[in-house]
Amino acid sequence: MKPLGILETCLYARDLEAAERFYTSLFELEVIARMPGRHVFFRCGRGVLLIFNPDKTEAETVLIDETAVPRHGARGAGHMAFAVPEAEFETWRGRLAAAGVAVEVEIVWPNGGRSLYLRDPAGNSVELATPRLWGLSEEPS
Amino acid sequence: MKPLGILETCLYARDLEAAERFYTSLFELEVIARMPGRHVFFRCGRGVLLIFNPDKTEAETVLIDETAVPRHGARGAGHMAFAVPEAEFETWRGRLAAAGVAVEVEIVWPNGGRSLYLRDPAGNSVELATPRLWGLSEEPS
Repeated sequence: MKPLGILETCLYARDLEAAERFYTSLFELEVIARMPGRHVFFRCGRGVLLIFNPDKTEAETVLIDETAVPRHGARGAGHMAFAVPEAEFETWRGRLAAAGVAVEVEIVWPNGGRSLYLRDPAGNSVELATPRLWGLSEEPS
Repeated sequence: MKPLGILETCLYARDLEAAERFYTSLFELEVIARMPGRHVFFRCGRGVLLIFNPDKTEAETVLIDETAVPRHGARGAGHMAFAVPEAEFETWRGRLAAAGVAVEVEIVWPNGGRSLYLRDPAGNSVELATPRLWGLSEEPS
């Protein structure tokens, strides 16, 4: 018995408005929940990207039916990668350029997978990668 | 144009051997890459879970074809969630108990989604959640 997959991926940012502008404008992610000052959540394929303000999630108690949601919160540059199809890789490069978002590094991996790395407004390392990098197919995931 | 989904989800841990034991024994994740002291990577559904030692990824230069992989690294408790089917939820609870892993909190969300929260050996908040929590189906993702 294994999990079906990963449902929630989490990054941290203090400026949630900047994060929301970045992830909705550049990646067209849909906002599915928002608590100003605490978090903003996005749907992405069959999972969700959660962005939390660590000052809140580390210290504040949020109750659901009298149960406290576990605390967490990290400082420093986190990392995540979006899956993009090989056929759209160049179009993504163009979109980043048009948006004035610098590509920090581009890597062609030994197995033919490709990655573009950029930074979100909080300094997290965000990667656009072809699923081939991990031997995975390009079905929506 | 949106990403297909999330390809890489990242947590941090200094004791990578403990992390590997935890994620392979409790969740049956397959190790797909390992650099002792720096990282261990697992396949999970159509994505991968990356666990890095932040002492290394923050400070060390790793070159791929003379290009330095971007640095990142966070301190503090991170968070992620595995998707598990509703039909297996009780079996997961039993597995955690059998493994001596404490359930920190259990939540039944207003929309009927269910979550079990535990801690990995590094203190990260790991959740087992039914996809209904985010209005998502139980197809492998």
